[in-house]
Amino acid sequence: MALDRQELQARPVGVFDSGVGGLTVAREIMRQIPNEKIVYFGDTARVPYGSKSRDTVVRYSRQIVRFLQTKQVKAIVIACNTASAFALDVLEQETDLPLIGVIRPGARVAADTTRNGEIGVIGTEGTIGSGIYPDFIHRINKTIRVTGKACPLFTSLVEEGLLEDPVTDEIASRYLSELIDIGIDTLILGCTHYPLIRSTIGRIMGEGVTLVNPAYETAVELKRLLEKQDLLCPKPPALGENRYRFYVSDSADKFKRFANSIIKYGILTAKTVPIEEY
Amino acid sequence: MALDRQELQARPVGVFDSGVGGLTVAREIMRQIPNEKIVYFGDTARVPYGSKSRDTVVRYSRQIVRFLQTKQVKAIVIACNTASAFALDVLEQETDLPLIGVIRPGARVAADTTRNGEIGVIGTEGTIGSGIYPDFIHRINKTIRVTGKACPLFTSLVEEGLLEDPVTDEIASRYLSELIDIGIDTLILGCTHYPLIRSTIGRIMGEGVTLVNPAYETAVELKRLLEKQDLLCPKPPALGENRYRFYVSDSADKFKRFANSIIKYGILTAKTVPIEEY
Repeated sequence: MALDRQELQARPVGVFDSGVGGLTVAREIMRQIPNEKIVYFGDTARVPYGSKSRDTVVRYSRQIVRFLQTKQVKAIVIACNTASAFALDVLEQETDLPLIGVIRPGARVAADTTRNGEIGVIGTEGTIGSGIYPDFIHRINKTIRVTGKACPLFTSLVEEGLLEDPVTDEIASRYLSELIDIGIDTLILGCTHYPLIRSTIGRIMGEGVTLVNPAYETAVELKRLLEKQDLLCPKPPALGENRYRFYVSDSADKFKRFANSIIKYGILTAKTVPIEEY
Repeated sequence: MALDRQELQARPVGVFDSGVGGLTVAREIMRQIPNEKIVYFGDTARVPYGSKSRDTVVRYSRQIVRFLQTKQVKAIVIACNTASAFALDVLEQETDLPLIGVIRPGARVAADTTRNGEIGVIGTEGTIGSGIYPDFIHRINKTIRVTGKACPLFTSLVEEGLLEDPVTDEIASRYLSELIDIGIDTLILGCTHYPLIRSTIGRIMGEGVTLVNPAYETAVELKRLLEKQDLLCPKPPALGENRYRFYVSDSADKFKRFANSIIKYGILTAKTVPIEEY
């Protein structure tokens, strides 16, 4: 039975992350294409991905894609830099669904933005170690120099709520000093938690440096992709329809508390899924 | 077929943790009862446990116990405070093997140590939230007051190698100020990472406060238990016998690097196990 176009357009977009960070991407999608329904999965029982190996992150991502497919999503956004870095390639070969990671959109905008050809990228050990940001940027422009710096403590500091704090300032100054010395003019916030300490990072880098937030760019790219494939939902969900659904692998209660602080969307329900069974 | 006593005594002790922290417990066992063989499992693909729910930690711990049983261990040490807090009860009902957690030994020594009846406990959110240290201490002495404080950033700071650092000092001062104000005289280091920043914690708490390291006490209790059950191995392993075996759920290479920094035992081999299949 062929699906009729309208039915296909009305399907939700799947968004997944290792935990709660990907909500910053979901939030951008909600803002930029408000007609779209979203099924979000956060792998809170196995978070974080940033310090884990490629094999493990690929295995976990594959299970999540299988889960999202059971929810009849029309496209999937990998809202986690580490999963995008390690798993996008593999997953693209294993599914027919349109897939978007957060890396390519961020890389493209950074390449367009730099004037002096010096880009910095900050992210998890996994993302930086994979060298994927330099790869994507060099496909666009070989002359740009890209310097990566892993900032593993940032995630913990954000999750501890130290968004504006002398300790976060001190750690950020250490991590970023190398990038300041190089004289980058563009910095990619290559982990979904980092936009939450954007003002600290911006203050330390100084006014001459443009911060690129892949969450924003990913929502732009998703909109473009859905338009191109005639998958954009033309009208808002019906009243009473469950527009945003959230699933996690660990306790839903804890997730809800953090989620409500990122997404101002009133009551938010979340369900726990035994993800290792997918 | 009944196992002969000697054969039983020669079996290894199983030790598990959410990751690498439990190596501080394994190290104490190696020091205190050097004849014993050890099979260590670190759940590096799903680390950390400290911020996750009881249900998840119990499910993970159960899989690990099943795995260790395939290695014919004679006893199991839960070398992780969070897993001990959440899963020891349940696991004791599900297996005939002698099981030891790190909480009871630490609680007992702390209760013996305090003179003013004011004990502090620091640990993960899970361990502190479970209230298990106060429970155990009150079974020994109801008049002791126990104050818990979750210190989630300590683990990240240790893993980032900031063992002696002004940032660790600052964070520790904040976490510990409440315990200093109360006037505790005994502090339990209720997470296996914390002994690695023992000197920072000790300096901030001051000389009047005794630090209790459950890793040490757990090895003492293991020795006592093995003696009592006539399971202590009477002689060292034969030359060439593989005394210590290490298993992890994520990449073995990364584990080896950290493990070698904790255990000065020369070349250390580790294997990856698909733990979710147990």
